[in-house]
Amino acid sequence: MDKQLIKDKGFNKLFNIKKKSDKSLDYYISGLRDGNRFVLSECITLIESSLPNKRHLALKALEETLISSTQKTIRLGITGTPGVGKSTFIESFGMLLIQEGYKPAILTIDPSSRVTQGSILGDKTRMPMLSTHPKAYIRPSASNNILGGIAPYTKDVIKLCEAAGYNFIIIETVGVGQSETEIKDIVDATLLLLQPGAGDEIQGIKRGIVESGDIFVITKADGIQISLAQQTQTYYSQALSLFHHEIPSWTTPVMKVSALEGNGMSDVLQSIQDFVHLLIEKKLYIPRRKNQDIMWFEKQVNTAIHQLLRENSHYQGFYNNILDQLKKESLSTTYAIDQMENFLKKEFFKS
Amino acid sequence: MDKQLIKDKGFNKLFNIKKKSDKSLDYYISGLRDGNRFVLSECITLIESSLPNKRHLALKALEETLISSTQKTIRLGITGTPGVGKSTFIESFGMLLIQEGYKPAILTIDPSSRVTQGSILGDKTRMPMLSTHPKAYIRPSASNNILGGIAPYTKDVIKLCEAAGYNFIIIETVGVGQSETEIKDIVDATLLLLQPGAGDEIQGIKRGIVESGDIFVITKADGIQISLAQQTQTYYSQALSLFHHEIPSWTTPVMKVSALEGNGMSDVLQSIQDFVHLLIEKKLYIPRRKNQDIMWFEKQVNTAIHQLLRENSHYQGFYNNILDQLKKESLSTTYAIDQMENFLKKEFFKS
Repeated sequence: MDKQLIKDKGFNKLFNIKKKSDKSLDYYISGLRDGNRFVLSECITLIESSLPNKRHLALKALEETLISSTQKTIRLGITGTPGVGKSTFIESFGMLLIQEGYKPAILTIDPSSRVTQGSILGDKTRMPMLSTHPKAYIRPSASNNILGGIAPYTKDVIKLCEAAGYNFIIIETVGVGQSETEIKDIVDATLLLLQPGAGDEIQGIKRGIVESGDIFVITKADGIQISLAQQTQTYYSQALSLFHHEIPSWTTPVMKVSALEGNGMSDVLQSIQDFVHLLIEKKLYIPRRKNQDIMWFEKQVNTAIHQLLRENSHYQGFYNNILDQLKKESLSTTYAIDQMENFLKKEFFKS
Repeated sequence: MDKQLIKDKGFNKLFNIKKKSDKSLDYYISGLRDGNRFVLSECITLIESSLPNKRHLALKALEETLISSTQKTIRLGITGTPGVGKSTFIESFGMLLIQEGYKPAILTIDPSSRVTQGSILGDKTRMPMLSTHPKAYIRPSASNNILGGIAPYTKDVIKLCEAAGYNFIIIETVGVGQSETEIKDIVDATLLLLQPGAGDEIQGIKRGIVESGDIFVITKADGIQISLAQQTQTYYSQALSLFHHEIPSWTTPVMKVSALEGNGMSDVLQSIQDFVHLLIEKKLYIPRRKNQDIMWFEKQVNTAIHQLLRENSHYQGFYNNILDQLKKESLSTTYAIDQMENFLKKEFFKS
């Protein structure tokens, strides 16, 4: 046995890595069909891989197990600033979902780091009941970049969970970065969690957020905060009446919950169900998802094009030169644009 | 004399077209420096041309006459839904600007059509005093596309106006299409005009608009509408207190005006001046403009790349094929993205 092999074996053993690529497509397909959560986790790890072969194995398995579009599932996004109580909400809300007969899968977007064992343990602490419940599945997902964007494959992770029998998929963002505004592109409905607060404290809604929340939920409406939560609810309700929802007949509700006392959770679930039923009734449920897939694809192709250009030294040199001139104001913007266009035509897009 | 030439001559005479390209760079430079409004109009027409030579002549003239960044001008965007009273507001506000010693230039974005004699006449009717005043300059500008986007050269049209001595540039959007959200990328401050209204009527703020308005102005606060305007003002003020302005120390004011009675115009001007002074004080005035130039450039390069790809039949064929499979759900999104990325690498970006 050569040295390298021994080393690799030791490494694999140390980190408990199985040679997953040795497993067959059938293994993954039947595992997903059986709702085997271990196989589901393996598939997600494959999709997250930087190796195309591994990725494509899981994608093939997904293509074979994709649920029919007539089978209704709910994809829910949950956003809110750090400290608003997202984990506590999900712990309580998730248990309600199980009670109501759903099988929930919770995907958490983590922009701070690549997925580590640490964040999995983190979820165990954050959601002790849900993370050990046999009917729930929790999985942290690395974000795409330092801006906390949603990874290109997250949409397919959702579909993998559905293929494995989960029918209520929750995507939780950490409340910072791009994922908060991107989330609406991959879910059916979005909850925006807000803290009770008044006056100055309340001035905390970030741009673009009002558009992404289909349902607003005031958390921690318990104990001494009850009347403050009530005021906050009234305040947001008034403010929201200024804004059209993208679906004309939907008026964004503002609700109160207490995860501590378990109050309000059923109302939130009812509201989500109402929203999804409205989508189905208006014949928007499937078209919206299809449209999201296409928009997602276009966005990622766009990102890929920019990445490829950034990696091209010839392009990058020319671009930086023009940009420098623009910064020094020795070039008009229109002229700079014309120059770039000519360069692109000449170098890349000779048709 | 050949037939074609006679025909062209007749055509040119009929539409009063001078052979502008025969004029020298010096003609345009000195014309701009003299503040000659006829030359300014000629330069704008050149920039709007689809012929690179014509465009570059005007851009060269601009590069030579660009005002120094120490010279302060105000670039103001005005948005609002059709019927809110934008023309009436600008007519009255523009006359105030002249009275206060400014030289205003008004550029109107017209998404409905290419620039025609019609829209110029339109402005004469819409703003009778301002359009004939020797200190004001009014120019309709075609929009970029059917979505009503701001044309790539509009930024340079602003700079041309500044080069010709105009120091208060107003960009008016027609209140529909992309230009409403894009406007903030080319101006220092944006006014959002709103009509008095209550309850259901008030539910008219479009997505993204709240972010682009630095100052809200309720129009038509006169006659029987005075108390309604007052209510509307209170309502918007409360609602806006929920949203952070991008400049932390700025609280978006909500003001009332009556163009009919001339009330409130000075307050609006004062507010715009306060905002611009805040930008200067926070050392944001020049950096923001430079940043806008760079963002504008990047956005237009992006548009150019997409245009070039759209025109490439090989790319378009591959893309459409993938898209079709995606629509039929016979392909996962991640796999579709991988396919496109490989194709782009192989065909366009071999590095």
